[in-house]
Amino acid sequence: MIRTILVAALLSTTALAAAPADPAAREKMFDASISAAEQQAWLKSMASAPNHVGAPHNKANAEFILAQFKAWGWQAKIETFEVLYPTPLETKVELVTPEKVTLGGQEPALAEDATSQNLAGALPPYVAFQGDGDVTADVVYVNYGLPDDYKALAARGISVKGKIAIARYGRGWRGLKPKLAQEAGAIGCIIYSDPAQDGYGDNDVYPKGGARPDFSVQRGSVADMITYPGDPTTPGYGSVPGAKHQSREEAATVLKIPTLPMSYGDASKILARLGGPLAPEAFRGGLPLAYHTGGDGKTQVHLLVKSEWSLKTLYNVIATMPGRDRPDEWVIRGNHHDGWVFGAADPLSGNVAMLSEAKALGALAKSGWRPSRTIVYASWDGEEPMLLGSTEWVETHAAELQKKAVLYINTDGNGRGFLGAEGSHQWQHLVNAVAKDVTDPQTGVSVDARLRAKLLADDYAGGSGARQDGTPTIGALAVGAADKGEDLPIGPLGSGSDYSAILQHLGIPALNIGYGGESQSGGNYHSIYDSYDHYVRFDDPGLAYGAVLSKTVGRMVLRVADAPTPPVRFGDFAATVRVYLGEVKGLADARRRGDEKREKLRAAGAFKLAADPLDPVAAPPVETATPVVELAALENAVARLETAARAFDKALAAKDATLPAEARGRLNAALRDIDQTLLLEEGLPFRPWYKHSIYAPGRFTGYGAKTLPGVREAIEERRFNDANRYAVLTAAALDRYAARLDAARAIIGG
Amino acid sequence: MIRTILVAALLSTTALAAAPADPAAREKMFDASISAAEQQAWLKSMASAPNHVGAPHNKANAEFILAQFKAWGWQAKIETFEVLYPTPLETKVELVTPEKVTLGGQEPALAEDATSQNLAGALPPYVAFQGDGDVTADVVYVNYGLPDDYKALAARGISVKGKIAIARYGRGWRGLKPKLAQEAGAIGCIIYSDPAQDGYGDNDVYPKGGARPDFSVQRGSVADMITYPGDPTTPGYGSVPGAKHQSREEAATVLKIPTLPMSYGDASKILARLGGPLAPEAFRGGLPLAYHTGGDGKTQVHLLVKSEWSLKTLYNVIATMPGRDRPDEWVIRGNHHDGWVFGAADPLSGNVAMLSEAKALGALAKSGWRPSRTIVYASWDGEEPMLLGSTEWVETHAAELQKKAVLYINTDGNGRGFLGAEGSHQWQHLVNAVAKDVTDPQTGVSVDARLRAKLLADDYAGGSGARQDGTPTIGALAVGAADKGEDLPIGPLGSGSDYSAILQHLGIPALNIGYGGESQSGGNYHSIYDSYDHYVRFDDPGLAYGAVLSKTVGRMVLRVADAPTPPVRFGDFAATVRVYLGEVKGLADARRRGDEKREKLRAAGAFKLAADPLDPVAAPPVETATPVVELAALENAVARLETAARAFDKALAAKDATLPAEARGRLNAALRDIDQTLLLEEGLPFRPWYKHSIYAPGRFTGYGAKTLPGVREAIEERRFNDANRYAVLTAAALDRYAARLDAARAIIGG
Repeated sequence: MIRTILVAALLSTTALAAAPADPAAREKMFDASISAAEQQAWLKSMASAPNHVGAPHNKANAEFILAQFKAWGWQAKIETFEVLYPTPLETKVELVTPEKVTLGGQEPALAEDATSQNLAGALPPYVAFQGDGDVTADVVYVNYGLPDDYKALAARGISVKGKIAIARYGRGWRGLKPKLAQEAGAIGCIIYSDPAQDGYGDNDVYPKGGARPDFSVQRGSVADMITYPGDPTTPGYGSVPGAKHQSREEAATVLKIPTLPMSYGDASKILARLGGPLAPEAFRGGLPLAYHTGGDGKTQVHLLVKSEWSLKTLYNVIATMPGRDRPDEWVIRGNHHDGWVFGAADPLSGNVAMLSEAKALGALAKSGWRPSRTIVYASWDGEEPMLLGSTEWVETHAAELQKKAVLYINTDGNGRGFLGAEGSHQWQHLVNAVAKDVTDPQTGVSVDARLRAKLLADDYAGGSGARQDGTPTIGALAVGAADKGEDLPIGPLGSGSDYSAILQHLGIPALNIGYGGESQSGGNYHSIYDSYDHYVRFDDPGLAYGAVLSKTVGRMVLRVADAPTPPVRFGDFAATVRVYLGEVKGLADARRRGDEKREKLRAAGAFKLAADPLDPVAAPPVETATPVVELAALENAVARLETAARAFDKALAAKDATLPAEARGRLNAALRDIDQTLLLEEGLPFRPWYKHSIYAPGRFTGYGAKTLPGVREAIEERRFNDANRYAVLTAAALDRYAARLDAARAIIGG
Repeated sequence: MIRTILVAALLSTTALAAAPADPAAREKMFDASISAAEQQAWLKSMASAPNHVGAPHNKANAEFILAQFKAWGWQAKIETFEVLYPTPLETKVELVTPEKVTLGGQEPALAEDATSQNLAGALPPYVAFQGDGDVTADVVYVNYGLPDDYKALAARGISVKGKIAIARYGRGWRGLKPKLAQEAGAIGCIIYSDPAQDGYGDNDVYPKGGARPDFSVQRGSVADMITYPGDPTTPGYGSVPGAKHQSREEAATVLKIPTLPMSYGDASKILARLGGPLAPEAFRGGLPLAYHTGGDGKTQVHLLVKSEWSLKTLYNVIATMPGRDRPDEWVIRGNHHDGWVFGAADPLSGNVAMLSEAKALGALAKSGWRPSRTIVYASWDGEEPMLLGSTEWVETHAAELQKKAVLYINTDGNGRGFLGAEGSHQWQHLVNAVAKDVTDPQTGVSVDARLRAKLLADDYAGGSGARQDGTPTIGALAVGAADKGEDLPIGPLGSGSDYSAILQHLGIPALNIGYGGESQSGGNYHSIYDSYDHYVRFDDPGLAYGAVLSKTVGRMVLRVADAPTPPVRFGDFAATVRVYLGEVKGLADARRRGDEKREKLRAAGAFKLAADPLDPVAAPPVETATPVVELAALENAVARLETAARAFDKALAAKDATLPAEARGRLNAALRDIDQTLLLEEGLPFRPWYKHSIYAPGRFTGYGAKTLPGVREAIEERRFNDANRYAVLTAAALDRYAARLDAARAIIGG
């Protein structure tokens, strides 16, 4: 099957034309090579068998991708790493008290879903990097399993110590749930998909609709991503073949307690039997029952996980198209190819879009064009277990990347709907400019115009418009920008895909691009039903948005690769940091007011008086009052940054067209590594691997970003010495950045 | 059983003491007569058999109440009315397509609920004043069945014309649902209790907990209350025996389409089978299914209702204790005694509290005290079908009431928790003063202090604190007042209990008082499980809050009855009207901005671009733009009212203690009917029976109040001529009020 497609793909690039010199004409020629039908054929083939790390079909896909790149004229190779990646040997979960009920096991085949009928080689539902174990204990329902949930439980006298925590998916990153349970003394953890957000509460369930049915399970990684991603046993360096590995016991990011994911059909059998107090309102999900906390000793579960912990081989495909003028300036673009099972939506929908781009770039090259800068395309392996392929590659090539990389553009699963973009904010205008030039396949207007219409219509309707499956964040800033016709803001990057190491460990700018909001791929997420059949029915029929993704990212690659100086606007970065600083100040003020209010109420006995004596809830715990955090240095640094950025942008706009080659070279060198001035040598508290002073995954959000993280999280977590210290460190980073901008402006002579 | 209690009650009032002259000591003596245990015994007896209008036990309860009042020394009588009140002869509801499923019927007996095992004489689930009929049609799910829901359906191309609408309870008043369905062309209506708000989403279901189980049905009235309450066939005049009645067909408030209420167990069998588009997010409830709109012709229901439509007799118990000094100034206090079935919580919990008050007042009287003003206690019949007993009595005695009544204090079902109060705002300070003098039985602080603690603790927690079962509205004003130690605001009165006719038809001030927020009486509301067993387990164990209600309302009665001039503060009324005017101005401004935004988006095609082409939603309909409403006259009137009220309050405070008797008489006369200056001769648009310019039940909320209703609803409903006209009429009413205050102040000489 793969071979047939390969030949077809080769044949379709035979009609060569001369490469246009005009960039717009070149993009038009690029578009002509993009075929949604071809993407659909690739998707069908690549998603035809299990694709997890170590699966034969995952390796075959890497080889297929390699062959395609080579056929399209790229210098391509497979780069391997040897990583720790546990696979389940035995999983067992069963209710034992008040009665015996077997739970868990592989998801069932469906007549409407072809690949679900052929599960040979597929792994059963499990989570990677949990701690093996065999435990039987009382169960406590911990809602999302996040810090506020444990506070609410403590106020009701409920502890998970020595018990099994059952948490629902959502809000915070998966891996936080067993980690926080473990820290609270739990001896096991179950994570289930609640139907309120991920099931019939969302849509008709599969196969009638695309939403999660009651027998579907979300797999995933539970390694401690917010400490560091990548192979847990090679922190900070590449797991190249032969590298030294820590023992599993030494590895900081492998959990200690056994953990399994669960369907809501199974979870309801546990939750319906829980005693203890009625769960607080915020704990109640979409199951047809009154949620209780459990913890009364009457509902016991047996949980067993035993894994195979040997090293496995990763197959990253790395393809290069050397730059004609500036071969040592790299534009890097990636998407992973490993999945949990078949991985049609996640990640192959993004990977086939990336293949289309590579083919189109190859066609341009065959017509005589060469990029000014070097273009590197990467199809990563092992993203799902813990961003393994990208992280190990980045750690291995850190020095070269910090010297050469201009920008990394990431995609992952894609779907029907609206453009979503996050990343380093000096690239915000590039995203906006490209979005104006790409046509939305359903409406015929630009994807920018459609997104603006969506923002404004949702704002009129009064809804947040926020959906689980990737609608862009709809905040007041975005609505205001949409209304005024200004550039739409892009979000900050947290974690959850392959941009993390290059951005947050090395300080190389990154963008993450995808379409969504009208896709139902949330409903098959990390289950065996993330299949070709689901994808073409519910996620992106005809892969129309696959083609749009190729055209979007392809333009970004072309424009960055070919511009004399990359199209950046530092004013956007400075303005965004100003917004973040305002948020942090607002957070500190709100915390201070809240602390005062709480202590005043406590002194007046208000919490005790307000509580229901028949359903008692303790007063909130005593906490250190939030002091005034010293933010003056940060304020001054942001002001300096704004001034420097505005001046630089103005100078470059005035002289860009006429800059002499020698100045251009020095300017580009000054800008190429500018974001590395934002790195903090000591990294962030508790996680030195994360060095970026502006963007980080939240310690208690995971995927969700925390901006100005050293300061913001310190205020949130009441580490006020850290808050003051990181305010100074962050200010110094911004000062370095502003100084570099001033130096770059001096080169231009603005 | 009743006789035994009667004797016990008589015995317990034999220990007479001399009535103290000091009001505080008098209230203490009053308290000593209040017995929660006695209330519990009365409750058990009165809720021992079905209590609907016409039921033998309902008449027996009236006779029991009469005998008690007489025994306690009151002048008491039963006043009868002959009212139209339909009872079901036959009800049938069944799914016929795609398969036959029998639904409906009486709720089942429970071992844990004694009276559910003896349903002799109980009516099956039904709603009163629906239109008899026998229809079979396709079903459309209309969410809450309110105007916005029909707009959302229309945007999806769904109509109820010729179909049966199924609506969930909540948001708006029950009777609006079939009325709006009928106006939209539906030929039948089903109203069901969704478990998200009223079932396992709230708590453990009965009998394990107090929440509504899947076989429980909410009965209720669906007469067109917002046109007028009372007997539909005697609009505006009393249904005294022999009065002329319109025919049922002539009666404006009887619906035309058959309607039945339904449990969520039954409703899920319909909703699970509905086709058509996925329902909008706002339509989704707590059943374990993806809600669809239906309307595709594939789900048909057969609905049949046949009623017995003869006149039935109401038994109002009216008891009087004549005033010593001012016999023609009446303080009226009422609670109804009819229920849907056993009616333990609704209404008997309030009625037994009222009985305790009457007994305590009788004991005071026996000790030598006599009230300065006349006290009238009323136990109403027929509240449930449509406020029949109170409305017919008020319409019959309108002239005398408008001459003599000072204040009406209402209660209804009561429960454990926090004080809730609504009413005419010059009485707000009385409520606050009393709340400081009544002790909360669970915490030992005053009910005022506990309510303030609750407001502030909920505000700290960031929750609204709003619950279904009667927690007081918790808004910013209340939180601010609680924080500053100012009087807590009371809410405005809409409809839903027996204060409506006296307040909104006659312009006599009213208060409605009750405890709740820690009760689970929402879960048995209007079902056979509103029983003694449910009440003492889940609503108010030991009737501790029954006793507190007696002490609260008893104080209000005593203070109003005995004060030389009733304890009013017109500044509170003026300040509240100022708040309402601010809301109306804000509403008009928001509407204008919204209209501009909508038309701008429509012109730009944004709604079309934002819509999902695979799940299309039409743009919002074109609507008349909101003009600038002429509110200057109203602003001036409010300012004049504020000035007059402040001056009056100051003058009275200065001279109250020393006012000569002659001036006192003229002052009291000037104040007694002052609220009648607020009546609009032509009444409100579409409903001339409602004459109050400040307080009305909302045309599209029902129970929920609309303040400044002539202006506010006209803006909401885009009747801009009405808005301008009623702004002038309301301003004139407030001017009359201010002029009366000035005249009253002249009497004082302030």
